Amino acid sequence: MPNANVLVINSGSSSLKFAVINSVNGDEIVSGLGECFGMPEATIAWKLNGIKTEEAITAADNHHANAITRIVKLIEDENLTDTIVAVGHRIVHGGEKFTKTVRIDSEVLAEIENLSDLAPLHNPAGAKGIHAAMAAFPSLPQFAVFDTAFHQTMPQKAFTGAISHELYEKYGIRRYGFHGTSHYYVSREAAKMLDKPVEQCNFITVHLGNGASVCAIKDGQSVDTSMGFTPLAGLMMGTRSGDLDPGIIEFLMKKGWTQEQVFDTLNKKSGFLGVSGITSDARGILQAMEEGHEGAKLAFQVFTYRVAKYIGSYLIPLDALDAIIFTGGIGENSLDIRREILNNLNLLGFVEDKKGNEDARFGASGIVAKSELLDALAVVIPTNEEFVIAQQSVELL
Amino acid sequence: MPNANVLVINSGSSSLKFAVINSVNGDEIVSGLGECFGMPEATIAWKLNGIKTEEAITAADNHHANAITRIVKLIEDENLTDTIVAVGHRIVHGGEKFTKTVRIDSEVLAEIENLSDLAPLHNPAGAKGIHAAMAAFPSLPQFAVFDTAFHQTMPQKAFTGAISHELYEKYGIRRYGFHGTSHYYVSREAAKMLDKPVEQCNFITVHLGNGASVCAIKDGQSVDTSMGFTPLAGLMMGTRSGDLDPGIIEFLMKKGWTQEQVFDTLNKKSGFLGVSGITSDARGILQAMEEGHEGAKLAFQVFTYRVAKYIGSYLIPLDALDAIIFTGGIGENSLDIRREILNNLNLLGFVEDKKGNEDARFGASGIVAKSELLDALAVVIPTNEEFVIAQQSVELL
Repeated sequence: MPNANVLVINSGSSSLKFAVINSVNGDEIVSGLGECFGMPEATIAWKLNGIKTEEAITAADNHHANAITRIVKLIEDENLTDTIVAVGHRIVHGGEKFTKTVRIDSEVLAEIENLSDLAPLHNPAGAKGIHAAMAAFPSLPQFAVFDTAFHQTMPQKAFTGAISHELYEKYGIRRYGFHGTSHYYVSREAAKMLDKPVEQCNFITVHLGNGASVCAIKDGQSVDTSMGFTPLAGLMMGTRSGDLDPGIIEFLMKKGWTQEQVFDTLNKKSGFLGVSGITSDARGILQAMEEGHEGAKLAFQVFTYRVAKYIGSYLIPLDALDAIIFTGGIGENSLDIRREILNNLNLLGFVEDKKGNEDARFGASGIVAKSELLDALAVVIPTNEEFVIAQQSVELL
Repeated sequence: MPNANVLVINSGSSSLKFAVINSVNGDEIVSGLGECFGMPEATIAWKLNGIKTEEAITAADNHHANAITRIVKLIEDENLTDTIVAVGHRIVHGGEKFTKTVRIDSEVLAEIENLSDLAPLHNPAGAKGIHAAMAAFPSLPQFAVFDTAFHQTMPQKAFTGAISHELYEKYGIRRYGFHGTSHYYVSREAAKMLDKPVEQCNFITVHLGNGASVCAIKDGQSVDTSMGFTPLAGLMMGTRSGDLDPGIIEFLMKKGWTQEQVFDTLNKKSGFLGVSGITSDARGILQAMEEGHEGAKLAFQVFTYRVAKYIGSYLIPLDALDAIIFTGGIGENSLDIRREILNNLNLLGFVEDKKGNEDARFGASGIVAKSELLDALAVVIPTNEEFVIAQQSVELL
């Protein structure tokens, strides 16, 4: 298949990320981002052959469609039209309905819109991107790749909230998990690294980016994950609290905080930003630590300690462990954070491979630690969600 | 000290539990409970020499004081007055102020009342009990034993919420933990069982009752625990949810649920009761499971799985593990629940000692499992918070 490029679209409420990806080797032919949709300063920018171009987008009534129109022109200008065989959309929420990637038809699109109740910011934006792309590329098949799909193999004991069962029956409240495409990809790549069929592999995948989640993978399948009904659950993140004593919310409301104030704080002013008091960015935290900032040091300690505790807890659903897999912006690049997490895994027998840990950065895979006790490795695998979207779209052609 | 009895008082908002305890051997000379305070049906009942007596309490304006008056008469009638050397009060919240048991003076009492902001149901009730007991026993020294005190050794990375640091500075929002007296007691008893100074012991203590919490104990000190700012956090309990994706609360409020409805559900209609749909009582869950009830089976699985995950996560703050310690009503008596938790600890090398597990019930201590991998035991130690309150009161005399 010489022409097996896929246009990958990740449509958010005020942004649209896109890339033309070679579905065979993952090469990114062009990639770009439209942002500030709905505002006068809306722009679209892309990188092609190492050169970055940026343009304003006008006509604020439908920036998503206007961005797609600009992408069509870009693809035509670069003579890429005939190389593209499909459009692959990243969709956040597939509910219990979508357990894998599907070809989009009117029924699928309606179902994605239906699931907006569970992802009120993301699914309508995803649907908007699909509508625009279907209008712009009427002859290309379109596919939906769901952030939740990989986790649909979780057993009931892992996805059930310890709350009234009526909340599940009435509203679908349960653990869904997110980052599924990333956990899927790095587990498959790690299986190749170990030269073992993924169906026989047991992993704990640790995706640490601005959002962060951990996944327990048994025989190649997700059996538990730290994000829950929403992406606010689980690990501490850039600005999100992660798991929280629900009594804190009640306390704040009794103090007169409104619902908006509470959830704005938990979503946008917590995590690295909240604990450190200075920044949501892990690199900024590390730099401030070096300069002796106490809040930054505490944020670093709380974050790494909590990641390590999740790793400890995810030994429970597994019968064996082949590897802990670090990925995501922080997981791939931050030597100090990986090192501190590994230090926390002392009782599980993990000993850092210092050279391996130093080498596995900025796009490089590698072994960063070993545990003789558990007969397990810790590795770094750079994630590539766009490649998965391209691959799975072409597979379904 | 031949006369070293202590009157132990646990004063709740609508109840008052009391006992006369021998501080040397823990013998319970008399124990009782006043309940339904503030209502016409208020009663006080006690057990003495195996005989149970129950009486109504009248004059609803101060049932706490009236209950204490009846206790004074009971003590006089039984000629126990001269044997009692102190009154020990169980107080729920000691904040960051109280790190151990203290003798109560007017300053301590004021501080306990000050901390009512953090425990609005419990601390005022505790203070009420102290006032009544001071009036009834003016010549006896009174002591306060705090549920939170044992956990004040937690390092900052364990007690810091992954939220805005201003919430800690302004309101004192952090992890305090509860059940401290129980975690303290069973860790000391387990050290005796292992014939090792507790300062060299590393434990994970698992208190499973109607409320439930786990504690990581390093060198004899609490270094992490599952309850948080409030007793709603951590494990699934009889009617409490434990840890929860905070996004669920936002979702329900957007659906029109009031704050009261949400927190009433999380505190009183969740946990065993919510998941099973039938009962908050572990024995009822087990019986319904035997009869094939699906909700009960799910509640059993979710509960045991979550306890096991906490045990896995609490390996992280420890450098070694001597034993997992089960205690509390469920932890001491429920063979099936202990067995399922141990089954979940498979990858940590725990193998159930079937006879040991069957024998360690209904007040008996014992070894219930071993892990060669971690060189650790799992044991049962019946808890005895009243004995600790009596002991620590006498120690401070």
